[in-house]
Amino acid sequence: MRSIHHVNFVVRNLEASLPAWEELLGQPVTSRDELPARGAKIARFRLANAWLVLIEPTRPDTPPGRHLAEHGEGFFLLSFGVDSLADEASRLGEDWFATPVRSGLDGWRVRDLEPARTAGAQCQLTEEP
Amino acid sequence: MRSIHHVNFVVRNLEASLPAWEELLGQPVTSRDELPARGAKIARFRLANAWLVLIEPTRPDTPPGRHLAEHGEGFFLLSFGVDSLADEASRLGEDWFATPVRSGLDGWRVRDLEPARTAGAQCQLTEEP
Repeated sequence: MRSIHHVNFVVRNLEASLPAWEELLGQPVTSRDELPARGAKIARFRLANAWLVLIEPTRPDTPPGRHLAEHGEGFFLLSFGVDSLADEASRLGEDWFATPVRSGLDGWRVRDLEPARTAGAQCQLTEEP
Repeated sequence: MRSIHHVNFVVRNLEASLPAWEELLGQPVTSRDELPARGAKIARFRLANAWLVLIEPTRPDTPPGRHLAEHGEGFFLLSFGVDSLADEASRLGEDWFATPVRSGLDGWRVRDLEPARTAGAQCQLTEEP
């Protein structure tokens, strides 16, 4: 693992939440996106070499939607930056992974880890293009 | 806010958890500490300019102990790096803070934010000496 690539929070309402985060972080939101396949409206803040990502689920039948329903707002996911997902899969073995590789924002390639191996928390690896 | 300074996980048993984290992160633990005042045994991994911190509560009557009892293992706290806690308190106002300044590892000065203002998650500011 090379870095903490991003930390995701689930929020109920992105528009309502953003002003407080902009005040706290002392900067305007860096970018806004939608990932329809993931059922997510997204706002990101750049913090040094990492991202703080806020996600509003747009449907209940998605990972962020289920997280919001089960746990309420708050931490959702921690993603580690890697040079190569393929190399990490070879090194760690398939048992470490909960999903196949999928596409995220900005061409990020991400792969979720098995939560039972990371203290029950959802962790993930991200490879940038 | 300048960076994501550290991300903390609560674990039930540090010794039992460490081998899997060392395997995942591809590196041995960077340092081990105890913070008796916080009721915490701690192991840290350096990842670029951030820390991944594992905490085993040593008593139930502490913030990490209560978090473990209420939520089980997993994400506990996200800390943002700042140049000056005093400047951030002036900029944000006291309403943003849940605690006074306290001392953390390595002379870090930390101050917890009001969880109601950060999607219910425990967030914190860290100033390094």
